[in-house]
Amino acid sequence: MPRYALLIEYDGRPFSGWQRQAEQPSVQGAIETALSRLEPRAHTIAAAGRTDAGVHGRGQVAHCDMDKDWDPFRLSEALNYHLKPAPVAILRAVRAPDDWHARFSARERRYLFRLLTRRAPATLEDGHVWRVNHDLDLQAMREGAAYLVGQHDFTTFRSVVCQAQSPVKTMNEIDITRVQGFAGPEIQFRLRARSFLHNQVRSIVGTLERVGAGSWTPQDVKTALDARDRAACGPVCPPQGLYLMGVGYPDDPFAGPPAR
Amino acid sequence: MPRYALLIEYDGRPFSGWQRQAEQPSVQGAIETALSRLEPRAHTIAAAGRTDAGVHGRGQVAHCDMDKDWDPFRLSEALNYHLKPAPVAILRAVRAPDDWHARFSARERRYLFRLLTRRAPATLEDGHVWRVNHDLDLQAMREGAAYLVGQHDFTTFRSVVCQAQSPVKTMNEIDITRVQGFAGPEIQFRLRARSFLHNQVRSIVGTLERVGAGSWTPQDVKTALDARDRAACGPVCPPQGLYLMGVGYPDDPFAGPPAR
Repeated sequence: MPRYALLIEYDGRPFSGWQRQAEQPSVQGAIETALSRLEPRAHTIAAAGRTDAGVHGRGQVAHCDMDKDWDPFRLSEALNYHLKPAPVAILRAVRAPDDWHARFSARERRYLFRLLTRRAPATLEDGHVWRVNHDLDLQAMREGAAYLVGQHDFTTFRSVVCQAQSPVKTMNEIDITRVQGFAGPEIQFRLRARSFLHNQVRSIVGTLERVGAGSWTPQDVKTALDARDRAACGPVCPPQGLYLMGVGYPDDPFAGPPAR
Repeated sequence: MPRYALLIEYDGRPFSGWQRQAEQPSVQGAIETALSRLEPRAHTIAAAGRTDAGVHGRGQVAHCDMDKDWDPFRLSEALNYHLKPAPVAILRAVRAPDDWHARFSARERRYLFRLLTRRAPATLEDGHVWRVNHDLDLQAMREGAAYLVGQHDFTTFRSVVCQAQSPVKTMNEIDITRVQGFAGPEIQFRLRARSFLHNQVRSIVGTLERVGAGSWTPQDVKTALDARDRAACGPVCPPQGLYLMGVGYPDDPFAGPPAR
């Protein structure tokens, strides 16, 4: 069965998350249903990041196994045709080796969190940013974030329902910048790690927001990390500012030029 | 009655347009209803640009007359409270002179049109861009647009239902750039004029898209303009990529610093 790697974009708003669930719309379910229109049988796809309800995909990666030898470009076009009107798009499909796995071959996940700082409610960006009323101290947030870079026990920053075997993870980078977005000033957080714990990004951003607002000191972040206690975490921020931006692989299946 | 200038942002998708209509949701209607929550009576507001269904506001300006002497910041906060959950936000309210008029005092309107060029359907940007499958020739579009700058009879580029007394308008600028947007490569058109005819921006962008795609030559734009005939226009492009970005006034009521 030829295997295909899919580069996927989606708006997380109407979905209960990536993962297929009975009776609930999911991104995985939408793509698997589209696949069954092409080859009528049950399909099961695997993805690099199982994003939560309301979290968006900008560079999600999954793989599927097909019976037929599809031209990759025609596969992406056929899937996009059958995905309509769900806000899910296959940006690219490429042939992948049989032993390549979207989840297990991944060496890095990259997330972006967008935080809009203004008084007025978001309209054009509603559902795509977390809006806070107040400005935030960029330097203090960077100082707090620095304690989280590297290998740590992230028990404080993971959901109690997280199923990962170990709370020890290595954070490669937390980059925090202020940009002028379309709807006003944004704070953008970019996080890179081989893998993330459940709710880890939202636990970190929610905690750093408290630092930026002045309720926490940067040093409080270290104290919380060292506590290895979920109760020491700051508030978990809402999902709608979060985007899975990309996935890194040793042999990137999307490295070549697009078919057309 | 103290007069207030309102700087307004909205997502045009759920609305039949700016203008109040019986039985149809409109941006004007949403704001007038919110005003009647603050001062219970009929309110009528005037805006600089009467945007069509699906067209967005990023810097729309309107004015309202109140019975009470409202603190401008409190007025914007109270309106935003009552506007929820409609995707309309008052970005700022300021006191304006009694003879200042959001529509008649305006000296320039600024529009942005966003065109996403990629194969895959838009998901995160759905309803906020016009997507076309093919790349566009930027230089050819700029050459075509140059024929439209300055004072012309724009009969070719206005809707047959346009109610303006004269088809003669002065286009101050048509700037066309290629930018890397969040969801991929965009062509952005920025148009400035004292005032626009009905459907003028969409008629121009739809025609220039044909030039960019190679179906029209730049010179064909001049031929169409000179025809002064609506039938000579290219296709009118869809509304969802269009944003009223700002309005220029001789004494800009929003020139000062925000109250807080």
